[in-house]
Amino acid sequence: MDKIQKIVLIGAGNLATQLGLALHEHGVIIMQVYSRTMSSANLLAEKVQAEAIVDLKEITPQADLYIFSVKDDALLQVLQQCSLFDKVLVHTAGSIDMNILQDFSSNYGVFYPLQTFSKSRKVDFKAIPFCIEASSDKCRQQLKQLARLLSSDVRDVDSMQRQSIHLAAVFVCNFVNYMYNVGFDLMQQHDLNFDLLKPLIMETAQKVMHTNPWEAQTGPAVRYDEQVMNKHLDFLDKQKQLKELYSFVSKQIFNKHQNK
Amino acid sequence: MDKIQKIVLIGAGNLATQLGLALHEHGVIIMQVYSRTMSSANLLAEKVQAEAIVDLKEITPQADLYIFSVKDDALLQVLQQCSLFDKVLVHTAGSIDMNILQDFSSNYGVFYPLQTFSKSRKVDFKAIPFCIEASSDKCRQQLKQLARLLSSDVRDVDSMQRQSIHLAAVFVCNFVNYMYNVGFDLMQQHDLNFDLLKPLIMETAQKVMHTNPWEAQTGPAVRYDEQVMNKHLDFLDKQKQLKELYSFVSKQIFNKHQNK
Repeated sequence: MDKIQKIVLIGAGNLATQLGLALHEHGVIIMQVYSRTMSSANLLAEKVQAEAIVDLKEITPQADLYIFSVKDDALLQVLQQCSLFDKVLVHTAGSIDMNILQDFSSNYGVFYPLQTFSKSRKVDFKAIPFCIEASSDKCRQQLKQLARLLSSDVRDVDSMQRQSIHLAAVFVCNFVNYMYNVGFDLMQQHDLNFDLLKPLIMETAQKVMHTNPWEAQTGPAVRYDEQVMNKHLDFLDKQKQLKELYSFVSKQIFNKHQNK
Repeated sequence: MDKIQKIVLIGAGNLATQLGLALHEHGVIIMQVYSRTMSSANLLAEKVQAEAIVDLKEITPQADLYIFSVKDDALLQVLQQCSLFDKVLVHTAGSIDMNILQDFSSNYGVFYPLQTFSKSRKVDFKAIPFCIEASSDKCRQQLKQLARLLSSDVRDVDSMQRQSIHLAAVFVCNFVNYMYNVGFDLMQQHDLNFDLLKPLIMETAQKVMHTNPWEAQTGPAVRYDEQVMNKHLDFLDKQKQLKELYSFVSKQIFNKHQNK
């Protein structure tokens, strides 16, 4: 089985950046980094000693693997501009079916690290689940071997499962972060430091490492403490959107726990 | 200044339990534990070598401090059944004004540890912010001295500020945990293990220890990726409440970031 040694990164966003840095650190050669703008391509390319390109026609045919890590709604268009028919192509998107790649190569798959990435924050890939799907056993083995360079948690996950995981991830990551943001704003509005909430945020996350979240649920909504909830709504005063959010989520929590 | 050495705990819920255990561990004498039911009073009383009582008339006048840690809507009624006029009384509630205690003693205050507690999960009090408010300087010093036994973060927080903190805490803890629960359910519905999401949950929390949550926001809603969002909504199929929650939070995230 041919080991993947040379890679082209199509995309230079948060995920592509962290993945590129980690692969580079583990000795994988990043031949090129493509991005729509030269500044963005350069920023990553310099860090991983790759060539920066902004024209998809310039993609080298010499790599073992082409990782497409672009916005979901741009993927198809980007693929259509490439000619890499006998190459191994993968995408890194949570919600896109693997088969989007089938018209563009005979070897393809999905290489999906389940994590939230920023360009600047380095993440430890060791514990990140890598969800792998591939068009053939050979391709799957190649992708798994590559993923195992970075992580000790490499799994077979089909497109349907990956879709569920991605949706769940939106709730436990993106929506959770939005709640942190609401907390941040409320503290700021009253000249209080967000730092005060940090031990609570960490404990809330730690708790569900060991406890089922249903068991872990606390707060006024679970016991339907109307006195507290009404005070909170009054306190939110003219912040209509937050009031709605507060009522909406409280109601769902209560419904879920009324037979507790 | 008289150091607080002997305490009565009125209430045996999550907060009272963890607070009682921590104070007992630090050599504070818990004289009595009151609860509405003997089994619940006993459960905690045994662990902290206290007397268990179910009749408020049996509360000893010998303690230095009486900690009222009962449901918000029960507090007033409980206070009315006690006769502790010259004693130091405190409550531990995030959303109740200190002055609720003024008719029941001349020395009173609030002793509010900002954390989420369960009966069974031991928490490290060292990093928990203790929010202190008191009717007099003397009382404040006593309460702070007691809090410093447990925590290195003891602060003066007035009733108005505590209200904001408590409201923010509902978002970053209770609502966040509900999002974890939604993630748990979605994984379970598709025979996937919640464990897969744990590195993501921890990283999402860790991220805001160092980054402003507004900066940390990722996901389809922030870039208004309609293709992904519509797929997610389709995927939720007949789960009407979750669909509403998904649309509602996504829209708020988008509104908050549209000028990013």
